[in-house]
Amino acid sequence: MSLTVFRKAHFNAAHRLYRKDWSEERNEEIFGKCNNPNFHGHNYELEVGVTGEVDPETGYLIDMKVLKDLIREEVEDAFDHKNLNVEVPEFANLNPTAENIAKVIWEKLRKRLDSDFKLSVKLYETPRNFVLFTG
Amino acid sequence: MSLTVFRKAHFNAAHRLYRKDWSEERNEEIFGKCNNPNFHGHNYELEVGVTGEVDPETGYLIDMKVLKDLIREEVEDAFDHKNLNVEVPEFANLNPTAENIAKVIWEKLRKRLDSDFKLSVKLYETPRNFVLFTG
Amino acid sequence: MSLTVFRKAHFNAAHRLYRKDWSEERNEEIFGKCNNPNFHGHNYELEVGVTGEVDPETGYLIDMKVLKDLIREEVEDAFDHKNLNVEVPEFANLNPTAENIAKVIWEKLRKRLDSDFKLSVKLYETPRNFVLFTG
Amino acid sequence: MSLTVFRKAHFNAAHRLYRKDWSEERNEEIFGKCNNPNFHGHNYELEVGVTGEVDPETGYLIDMKVLKDLIREEVEDAFDHKNLNVEVPEFANLNPTAENIAKVIWEKLRKRLDSDFKLSVKLYETPRNFVLFTG
Amino acid sequence: MSLTVFRKAHFNAAHRLYRKDWSEERNEEIFGKCNNPNFHGHNYELEVGVTGEVDPETGYLIDMKVLKDLIREEVEDAFDHKNLNVEVPEFANLNPTAENIAKVIWEKLRKRLDSDFKLSVKLYETPRNFVLFTG
Amino acid sequence: MSLTVFRKAHFNAAHRLYRKDWSEERNEEIFGKCNNPNFHGHNYELEVGVTGEVDPETGYLIDMKVLKDLIREEVEDAFDHKNLNVEVPEFANLNPTAENIAKVIWEKLRKRLDSDFKLSVKLYETPRNFVLFTG
Repeated sequence: MSLTVFRKAHFNAAHRLYRKDWSEERNEEIFGKCNNPNFHGHNYELEVGVTGEVDPETGYLIDMKVLKDLIREEVEDAFDHKNLNVEVPEFANLNPTAENIAKVIWEKLRKRLDSDFKLSVKLYETPRNFVLFTG
Repeated sequence: MSLTVFRKAHFNAAHRLYRKDWSEERNEEIFGKCNNPNFHGHNYELEVGVTGEVDPETGYLIDMKVLKDLIREEVEDAFDHKNLNVEVPEFANLNPTAENIAKVIWEKLRKRLDSDFKLSVKLYETPRNFVLFTG
Repeated sequence: MSLTVFRKAHFNAAHRLYRKDWSEERNEEIFGKCNNPNFHGHNYELEVGVTGEVDPETGYLIDMKVLKDLIREEVEDAFDHKNLNVEVPEFANLNPTAENIAKVIWEKLRKRLDSDFKLSVKLYETPRNFVLFTG
Repeated sequence: MSLTVFRKAHFNAAHRLYRKDWSEERNEEIFGKCNNPNFHGHNYELEVGVTGEVDPETGYLIDMKVLKDLIREEVEDAFDHKNLNVEVPEFANLNPTAENIAKVIWEKLRKRLDSDFKLSVKLYETPRNFVLFTG
Repeated sequence: MSLTVFRKAHFNAAHRLYRKDWSEERNEEIFGKCNNPNFHGHNYELEVGVTGEVDPETGYLIDMKVLKDLIREEVEDAFDHKNLNVEVPEFANLNPTAENIAKVIWEKLRKRLDSDFKLSVKLYETPRNFVLFTG
Repeated sequence: MSLTVFRKAHFNAAHRLYRKDWSEERNEEIFGKCNNPNFHGHNYELEVGVTGEVDPETGYLIDMKVLKDLIREEVEDAFDHKNLNVEVPEFANLNPTAENIAKVIWEKLRKRLDSDFKLSVKLYETPRNFVLFTG
C-alpha cells in the first residue's frame, strides 16, 4: 500500500535575484525588479510530500510529528526571518530563485529521510507563483 | 483525450488513534495526544480525482452530479458526524489514521466506478496535514 | 491612533450538542446529528482581534508573540485534541455550541489582557459556519 | 535538474452546455441546469504548469513574466468577460465543458511554448469542481 | 449575550451591467467590458451574518440548518445557474452590480428573519472584489 | 443606501523592525528576529474598504477600476519589491510594523478619495497576523 503524506510549513525571508559575475545591466535585464540591491521578500509556503509504504501495524507512513520537526530543523530554523543571499550558506554562490530554493530544501530533507521514501517539495513564492521539485 | 476531473467534499468526525492489542503505554508512546480515549475530531476535506477518456459527444469525462452523489452516498452519509472508531464498520479493527481513512474511501469508491477510470483520493485531516492514495 | 491586530490559531476537538436535563427525543429534535452520543469533531479555526492604541515608540499595539503565547496557553493547550464535553471544565454544564465556545474563549482571554484593549473572537466550526463574539 | 513551475491566472465568463444537433429534451436530460439557454457563468481559476530543465546560469526554468504575459495573451484576453459559446471561436462547435475549455487552453499555450517543455493545465470551474489536462 | 453567526453559500450566474435607458456609448463608457451584450458570469460567494441574543437554553442564536435552508430557498434556488438580467425579476429594471445584488439578497432574507435579528450580507463577485451591506 | 466595497491587492517587500535611536540590545529585546539587520520579508495582502452611498443611477459605490488603479499607484507601485526601511520615504523615521504600514497606506489613499467616503485598510503580514485601521 503505497501512499503520499504531505505536511505544510512556512517561512518569511528577504532575497535578491542576481549573479555577482554579471554586469549591473545584465542583472537588470534578466531579473528586473527582483534584482533590487536593497532586497525584497516573501512569505514562502512549503508543502513537503513523502511517498512510501504504510506501516500496517500503526497505519502511519511516517509520524507527522517527526516530519514536522524535521522541516522545522532543516528549513524553518535555517531560513525563517533570514536574508537568503547574505545569511544562508547554500545561497552564497547560488541565485535564490524559487527553483533553486526548492532544490536546496529537497536536498536538505533528502539526507534526513529513510532512502525507501520518495520526496517532493512544492514551494509557493507568492500565491500565484510556485514550483515543484521531485528530485 | 485523457484527463482528470476532481470533486471536493467534506465530513466532520471524531476519532482516536490506537490499537486495542497494544498496552496503554505503547499507544501513548506512538500516538501521543491522538490516543485520547475520549476522542478528538476533525473537519475532513476530501478531493476525489477520476482519470479517463472524455466522451467526445458530451465533452464530459463523468457527469459531476453522478460523482457528487456517489461521494455523498459512500463517504458523507457513512462518515459525517460519526465517531469513526465506534460507528464505522471499516474501522472496527483498523486504526483510523488519515492514511487508512483515505484507503477505505478509495476502496468504497473504486467498487462503484467504471473500471476504465483511474481513481485518486486526497484527504486533508487538517489544513497542514494531508494524504494522497492512488491505489 | 486606534487599530485592531488579529492573530489566527486552531485546535481540533470532539464534541456533542445536547442537554443532560432534556429527553433523548428533545435532544434529537433540536440538535439532530450533532447530538450523536458517540461524539463527532471539528478543526476549529480561531481569529482573535485586539483593539487599542498603538504604542508610538515601538509601533506595536501588542507584541504578537505575547498574543500568540496567550492564545496557546488559554485555548490551544486547553482545547486541542480534547473532548470538549468530557474534558474541558467550562463545558461540564454548558452546551459546546460554536456560540458558547466563542464566549468561553473570549472570557478566558479577557482576563489575561490589559483592560484598555477591546477583544473580539471569531470562531470557525467549519469553513461555512462561524461566529463572532465581541463581549 | 527537472522541475515544474506553476502560474495562476483567472477569467470570468458566461457559458451554456448543450449540443446544437440534439433535441431540447436530450440537452435538458444530459446537461440539466447547465443547459440554461440564457447562459450562466463562472470565475474560472487557472493553474498552468511548465516542466523542464532549470537554466543553471539564471536559476530560472522560464521567466515567470514571460509565462504570465503568454497566459494573458492566449487565455485572459481571449476569454475574460466573454460569452464562451457566442464569442470564442474555439467553442463555436465545441461544448464548453470544463474538460473542453482545459483542452483548448492547453492547445493554445502548447503552440507558444518551447517544445522541450511539458505542459499541464488545471482549471477550476468552481471551488469544488476542477479538471487537469496534461496532453 | 449578543453575538453574530455566519453562514456561507454560493451561486453561479451570468449578468451584464448596463442601463436600458442609456446610449450604447454611455453604457460602454461607464461599464466597459462588464457591458458585454452577450453576458459574462461569476461564481458568487455569499456570507450571511445574523446578530442577536443567544438562547441560553440551547446555546444557539439560530439553528444553522434553518439559516442554511432559508439561504437556499431565497438565494440559491432563485439565482443559481441563472441569467440575472433576464431571469431574475428583481433585476428586470435594476442593474445587477454587486452592490445591488447584495441589497436584493439582504431584502429577501430580511423579510424571512425574526425582526429581533440584525442582518448583514457580504457578497464576493470575484476573490478580489466584494461588498458588504448591513441595511 | 450605505454600503462598503472591498478591493484586494498585494505587494512583496523586505523590512526590518528597529529604532535607530535604541541600543542593539533594546532592539533585540523588543523586536527579536524581526530586528535582523540583513532584513527579512513578506507577501503583504491588502484589503481596502470604501464605505458610502451607492449611486442610484449606476448601481456603483465607486468604479472598482478606479479603486484598483488608485491602489496600484499609491501602494503597489510605491511598495512592491522594495525595501521598506531603505527605499520608502514614509518609513525613513517610522518603524515599518504592520500597524504603521497600514496607517501609512490609509493616509495615502485617504488623500485621493472623495471625503464623503469612509476608508478602512486591512493588511495581512502573514496568513496568521493581520491588522485593521479605520482612521
